[in-house]
Amino acid sequence: MKLGMVGLGKMGYNLVLNLLHHRHEVVAFDMNGEAVQNAAKQGAVPASSLEQLVQSLEAPRIVWVMVPAGPAVQSVADTLIPLLSPGDIVIDGGNSHYKDSLALAEKLSGHGIHFFDVGTSGGVEGANQGGCFMIGGDEAIFRTIEPIFKDIAVDKGYLYAGKNGSGHFLKMVHNGIEYGMMQAIAEGFEVLEKSQFDYNFEDVARVWSNGSVIRSWLMELTEHAFSKDPKLEGIRGVMRSSGEGKWTVETALDLQASAPVIALSLFMRYRSLETDTFHGKVVAALRNEFGGHAVESSK
Amino acid sequence: MKLGMVGLGKMGYNLVLNLLHHRHEVVAFDMNGEAVQNAAKQGAVPASSLEQLVQSLEAPRIVWVMVPAGPAVQSVADTLIPLLSPGDIVIDGGNSHYKDSLALAEKLSGHGIHFFDVGTSGGVEGANQGGCFMIGGDEAIFRTIEPIFKDIAVDKGYLYAGKNGSGHFLKMVHNGIEYGMMQAIAEGFEVLEKSQFDYNFEDVARVWSNGSVIRSWLMELTEHAFSKDPKLEGIRGVMRSSGEGKWTVETALDLQASAPVIALSLFMRYRSLETDTFHGKVVAALRNEFGGHAVESSK
Amino acid sequence: MKLGMVGLGKMGYNLVLNLLHHRHEVVAFDMNGEAVQNAAKQGAVPASSLEQLVQSLEAPRIVWVMVPAGPAVQSVADTLIPLLSPGDIVIDGGNSHYKDSLALAEKLSGHGIHFFDVGTSGGVEGANQGGCFMIGGDEAIFRTIEPIFKDIAVDKGYLYAGKNGSGHFLKMVHNGIEYGMMQAIAEGFEVLEKSQFDYNFEDVARVWSNGSVIRSWLMELTEHAFSKDPKLEGIRGVMRSSGEGKWTVETALDLQASAPVIALSLFMRYRSLETDTFHGKVVAALRNEFGGHAVESSK
Amino acid sequence: MKLGMVGLGKMGYNLVLNLLHHRHEVVAFDMNGEAVQNAAKQGAVPASSLEQLVQSLEAPRIVWVMVPAGPAVQSVADTLIPLLSPGDIVIDGGNSHYKDSLALAEKLSGHGIHFFDVGTSGGVEGANQGGCFMIGGDEAIFRTIEPIFKDIAVDKGYLYAGKNGSGHFLKMVHNGIEYGMMQAIAEGFEVLEKSQFDYNFEDVARVWSNGSVIRSWLMELTEHAFSKDPKLEGIRGVMRSSGEGKWTVETALDLQASAPVIALSLFMRYRSLETDTFHGKVVAALRNEFGGHAVESSK
Repeated sequence: MKLGMVGLGKMGYNLVLNLLHHRHEVVAFDMNGEAVQNAAKQGAVPASSLEQLVQSLEAPRIVWVMVPAGPAVQSVADTLIPLLSPGDIVIDGGNSHYKDSLALAEKLSGHGIHFFDVGTSGGVEGANQGGCFMIGGDEAIFRTIEPIFKDIAVDKGYLYAGKNGSGHFLKMVHNGIEYGMMQAIAEGFEVLEKSQFDYNFEDVARVWSNGSVIRSWLMELTEHAFSKDPKLEGIRGVMRSSGEGKWTVETALDLQASAPVIALSLFMRYRSLETDTFHGKVVAALRNEFGGHAVESSK
Repeated sequence: MKLGMVGLGKMGYNLVLNLLHHRHEVVAFDMNGEAVQNAAKQGAVPASSLEQLVQSLEAPRIVWVMVPAGPAVQSVADTLIPLLSPGDIVIDGGNSHYKDSLALAEKLSGHGIHFFDVGTSGGVEGANQGGCFMIGGDEAIFRTIEPIFKDIAVDKGYLYAGKNGSGHFLKMVHNGIEYGMMQAIAEGFEVLEKSQFDYNFEDVARVWSNGSVIRSWLMELTEHAFSKDPKLEGIRGVMRSSGEGKWTVETALDLQASAPVIALSLFMRYRSLETDTFHGKVVAALRNEFGGHAVESSK
Repeated sequence: MKLGMVGLGKMGYNLVLNLLHHRHEVVAFDMNGEAVQNAAKQGAVPASSLEQLVQSLEAPRIVWVMVPAGPAVQSVADTLIPLLSPGDIVIDGGNSHYKDSLALAEKLSGHGIHFFDVGTSGGVEGANQGGCFMIGGDEAIFRTIEPIFKDIAVDKGYLYAGKNGSGHFLKMVHNGIEYGMMQAIAEGFEVLEKSQFDYNFEDVARVWSNGSVIRSWLMELTEHAFSKDPKLEGIRGVMRSSGEGKWTVETALDLQASAPVIALSLFMRYRSLETDTFHGKVVAALRNEFGGHAVESSK
Repeated sequence: MKLGMVGLGKMGYNLVLNLLHHRHEVVAFDMNGEAVQNAAKQGAVPASSLEQLVQSLEAPRIVWVMVPAGPAVQSVADTLIPLLSPGDIVIDGGNSHYKDSLALAEKLSGHGIHFFDVGTSGGVEGANQGGCFMIGGDEAIFRTIEPIFKDIAVDKGYLYAGKNGSGHFLKMVHNGIEYGMMQAIAEGFEVLEKSQFDYNFEDVARVWSNGSVIRSWLMELTEHAFSKDPKLEGIRGVMRSSGEGKWTVETALDLQASAPVIALSLFMRYRSLETDTFHGKVVAALRNEFGGHAVESSK
């Protein structure tokens, strides 16, 4: 099929390669002209503007937007609306909040444009060689573009999840689970690291990746990480986060769903951003107050 | 090679099948004579007692003990000691506490008997078709029995982890991680279940098993569980536990290692064993005390 | 001083009594005419409408709104705006979200009306006999109404906290802390209840209320609750919540502040609303999948 | 009454002052002769050894041991046994593990010596001016020494809790609750500190100490701490712990009691002992592996 790709960052660029590899025609645009040139070298049709991208497609046009969630998606969508025609299709393959996707779906629907919120997982490697896609939108229209997903996903790696919002909601929860799984794995290695035994962590991750109950892609990645730096001495334990974990917790709060482990995984990430904490100071001060326990000077 | 198997429960019996399949000779014993007969039908040499089992082996004898952790292991070991000779080998393949294994290793060592604490993962299926083994004990002696593990493990699925204790310690932490991963996955599905969307959970688990960051054997098992009962309506959410998760938390406490997610996964399991809680009653009573909030009668 | 009170529920009615006791003049209104009559019997000037209430006050008027947070506050405020004059004062003494208060302050400011967001703590008893008030708004204007707070608060029991929003923000965090303290106390009693010892919980709460590090009003209330029902057999452990704890967690998430204990206290409340959980079913199903552990039927 | 005090540290010395103030006779001993001299100056009878201390008392002797939990208590008890006579009384007023107290009670019982495990709360100030005491042991014997507790406790500040072990168990759980309450308070202030408002924390702690639901001695201590250092800039947030919190969590695990908030409070303390964590490194490395997210160098 033929489609436009807006946004040629790590994910968008690799999706383009994946699409081209499966003999789809891709018209590629990015604010960064160099990224467009790179895509063109790989076989994409370069576009120097959203206008040109739209003009290079035939109705019903398919435009895959792969830009950072939030204002960037909104801005691209607002620019696309007057350029597109009823019956055209916009796909947001990024990590947008499902409520934003619900709103965008409604806005586009007002112009007769179909919208799909597509959660994409599998990392950069997945984008390139076969990822996992969770798709929300109109089912009948979805069937018309299903061949794309069949090609770029690994086998059984795409799902029509339901009406609009359900795709990004699923991706959000996926990432919440991911936070919890990563924290669980990491805590396990922390216990090993503080233990009386002298483990080779790469070996441990490898054996756990083969035949154990906790075998998983994350464990394979753990093995790979330790193969490069056996005790991770070169990196700091700063655990950043990009939004979906927080949204999962907020959603759990709204739904009164028990999600303590996902919540705690997130709070440990926030904790890791600080070398000292105000709550710690309060507790230390209190211990000094009632028990005369010495405090450590911050100087 | 030739070895004795003591304990023919789900795990032991399937290990016997696995060993026989790889053309090892197995002398099999269990308190339950029927289990011994079943093993014999599959090709094992039946033994009607530990004495007979030991007599059916040649020095250096290899005895794999696959009985419940705790007193059962101690009892089997105590019975074996006078029957075995210096240079013989005892393997505990169960879920023993690593401190018990350290003590047992020392006791057996006093009789010249080599001990291996072997953590076994992969479930019943793994025991049968290829599991994951984490092995603690003397390395030189281990190399003499390595062919066994090479055969019964999946490729790369066994690890000489270090001196005695390190095998069961690794299995303990493995299970701690397992608790955290399971809770994270389960919380994710709880959020889905309470959401505004109407997901097919089997489909969700399938797409997450293919190409996503959280793909894992546990997710495949989740898919399988939903394939049998799409909304798990037939079962109660009672989450039992067998010890290793608790030991992991206790060990983390001793090591002052951060393991909040593993700890919390365990506490949620304990919580699930009760339909009402005393802590809940206290909070409900307090809300009534200061705010006049109505309490619900337990009648 | 003279002021109007809108909303004569548990909190509003007791505040009226408190104000009257300190010889303030109170014009009282509630949708429920009977509540107005009750207040009138205690010495308040009854008002049959917001219009009448406003007319019974002299500029600069002071109107204390004590109605449920959310739409009710908005509705009262919208009705009051055309009735009030520049320089008049509106106080929201309820548990409004601080962001709503920030918005309301701005809206009222557009009409020249001063707004104070006042967090009220101390429960019904505090409203009646002396509570705790956290006040956000213009400081100079606050000084003109300070005598009211001096009278209705316990000694040192009111604080001009800062600009608008800071009062309700402080109350929100107060409640978050309250959730954590209550859960900690409740968990302690759960451990006692499951212990090998046969404690008299009322006695325990009493001794902990006298001289211990954890002495607190909540512990005194715990003592009182146990004095009425020694083992809380008559009530169910259903822990409802009214919003501020959730807002505290949401705010902590926004601020990337570590608040795991407050978050967890809230999640345990949500957990208590269910007798069975979907996450529990998933974990139970998974244990069955990999280990053949029996599940309990929900039938 | 007349009694011996063994151990004149912060707690023991202040208990001596408290006892002397209430006209009890105290024979005082400590390994540190200077501490004995200080006690003597305040009116205690100095003893240069445990032998001399015992000889200075009349049967039935009462010996209050106030030394660090663990080996020190065991050592003092072992030395006392041959010096004491049947019918004598030993009190352990320190923070011993209740299981140690159960064992010690049995050992002393074998010599006809009565033992009381006494949990002491209220900090140094409480020891001096009136503390909180939780007492486990034989009830009839307790009544013979009750006057001591009546004097040194605040009003209603002592409790005969039950048989041996129940006193230290109660103190253990008290400290577990204390950990949770402190963490809850501390998290609240962390949210305030990160908020958009500019609070005076001393003022906040003061208003919360007067009339609010969360008023407590800990909040008063918080006020005092902020009065000395308004933003706690001078101290580091290192939260040490001394054992009872950990024992509470371990006991909760043994009892399968839900104590997630107490457990988490402890894990946050452990977390505060480290400036970087291994689990953080693992998560950071994993994010880099699957998403190409940059890691921060530890150099």
